[in-house]
Amino acid sequence: MRPIIGITMGDASGVGPEVIAKALMMKSIYEICRPLVIGDADVMAKVVKVANACLKINSVKKVSECNFVYGTMDVLDLNNISTNSLKIGQVDEMAGKAAIEYVEKTTELALKEDIHAIVTAPINKEAVNKAGYKFTSHTELLAKLTNTKHVAMMLVAGPLRVIHVTTHVPLREACDLVRKERVLATIKLAHKAMQSMGIEEPRIAVAGLNPHAGEGGLFGTEEIKEIKPAVSTARNLGINAVGPIPPDTVFTRARKGEFDTVVAMYHDQGHIPAKLSAFPSGVNVTIGLPIVRVSVDHGTAFDIAWKGVASPQSLIEAIKLASKISGTER
Amino acid sequence: MRPIIGITMGDASGVGPEVIAKALMMKSIYEICRPLVIGDADVMAKVVKVANACLKINSVKKVSECNFVYGTMDVLDLNNISTNSLKIGQVDEMAGKAAIEYVEKTTELALKEDIHAIVTAPINKEAVNKAGYKFTSHTELLAKLTNTKHVAMMLVAGPLRVIHVTTHVPLREACDLVRKERVLATIKLAHKAMQSMGIEEPRIAVAGLNPHAGEGGLFGTEEIKEIKPAVSTARNLGINAVGPIPPDTVFTRARKGEFDTVVAMYHDQGHIPAKLSAFPSGVNVTIGLPIVRVSVDHGTAFDIAWKGVASPQSLIEAIKLASKISGTER
Repeated sequence: MRPIIGITMGDASGVGPEVIAKALMMKSIYEICRPLVIGDADVMAKVVKVANACLKINSVKKVSECNFVYGTMDVLDLNNISTNSLKIGQVDEMAGKAAIEYVEKTTELALKEDIHAIVTAPINKEAVNKAGYKFTSHTELLAKLTNTKHVAMMLVAGPLRVIHVTTHVPLREACDLVRKERVLATIKLAHKAMQSMGIEEPRIAVAGLNPHAGEGGLFGTEEIKEIKPAVSTARNLGINAVGPIPPDTVFTRARKGEFDTVVAMYHDQGHIPAKLSAFPSGVNVTIGLPIVRVSVDHGTAFDIAWKGVASPQSLIEAIKLASKISGTER
Repeated sequence: MRPIIGITMGDASGVGPEVIAKALMMKSIYEICRPLVIGDADVMAKVVKVANACLKINSVKKVSECNFVYGTMDVLDLNNISTNSLKIGQVDEMAGKAAIEYVEKTTELALKEDIHAIVTAPINKEAVNKAGYKFTSHTELLAKLTNTKHVAMMLVAGPLRVIHVTTHVPLREACDLVRKERVLATIKLAHKAMQSMGIEEPRIAVAGLNPHAGEGGLFGTEEIKEIKPAVSTARNLGINAVGPIPPDTVFTRARKGEFDTVVAMYHDQGHIPAKLSAFPSGVNVTIGLPIVRVSVDHGTAFDIAWKGVASPQSLIEAIKLASKISGTER
């Protein structure tokens, strides 16, 4: 049976609704999964016109009411947007609040196993904070909602898969957070994640933190004190991890196929090569959650929202990957 | 008149001599410049056989004795290597000492304007330090020899040109060094460098230090306190600089042609995208020196030295770029 993929609508003022409409125009999506949008039915009814998508809206209150038939978009309607007052392409408190409610509802469904994976459309941080939430990222919210301690973000960009030891913290704080335990926990997550994607014995490259991976202590000691011991422990556990490898060569080597995934020490160390390798687009997978979650790699893109020009490519890739992972895991 | 390009032989135990022999087999090189190797004539005579290069060696003591004719390699012979005792593919104190002497001699010639640009083959740090020098990089040595305060390294990798505010320091020290004055000085160097490459009004992108360029202070304050003020001052000076731009998008935008160069805050921020974009190979330019200096982007590669397999591509690119820059400047 094809997995049921819950797609959160994201911020109604941004490109989320539009790229969902465009993605669900693809018949191939319905061949690999049963998609369900968790959002606002009025918004989706309005946006299908913008996207010139010939899709009927089936507004439902529970998963069992869905049709899962190509040509009709099933929307679990939280009815929390007034389309008349919605500020398109702008920070909108109402849309921020609504976006969080979609994530909460979708997570609840995933935990109950009413759906098999979550795909998230972009949220606008400012709108959410304006609505009174303390919010830094989707990933953190999902960790909280599922009561998970160790999560990590994996970017999937063509041949390159990158998982991060740290992400949304200042760079100097990232340096402080590169500790043996944390690096080891991330290597373990990488190993598990690759297995969930069907690679039984993944080859894991661990990047250094400093230039030339510290050059024997000349340019920093985190490699010697923290990263190398983490790699050794991982190897003793039977994980095929190598490193620390100089950050400026490890991604080239991984892209050529030498490794299945790279453990990056900080946000931009992983994001720079992933974005450069993401043709036509990449996706993010949250690793370590009790549920499968894949995200688009772009933001709300207010400047092009509701104009019919946004590309659904990343969302399509995200739905495909979510279907693959949830298919493998069950 | 074609510029005279002084090519240092680098570490005799590494791939330097061999890639020089291969590069000078290219007739096209002699069409754009007059190359002169500063090294050891015995080593070059031996290595042309390894490279299967049909080149005669013209050992000279001064520039005026050179022929600059394709088919003959002019070598300013410092006669400081005993080829019989040279340890091929290994750290060799003699080769380390000799390599420094080539750089010193070549810099002297460039300062006297006997030659018009320097291209450097790789040096092995360990060999140089074993020979008793306190050496961290070519670039630092050249700054010292030319009594230059502000220098910076620019990587040229296909469509991407990246200049660095900091390079060979631990990452946490790099964070400390991101200060307004230093960022501004680097922006100015980038501007000047682009002009020397023939771009009159270069578009300069300045990267942030932190994830999302700090996201308004949420993930670090260096953007607000240091980088933004530096960009403002540069703009007031008539330089077309923009930023800080999120590090994970600025290189993609530059590669698409939106900017002529990117100012990176630390070694790997610039080196990761440059190495991923360097097909088939990249080069480094030292900016801020009173002389033109271009370097290959690889090391001594002891594992493949003197085996006939090393690629001269980066050296060829380096000679071409040095010829172009020195041609424009005079």
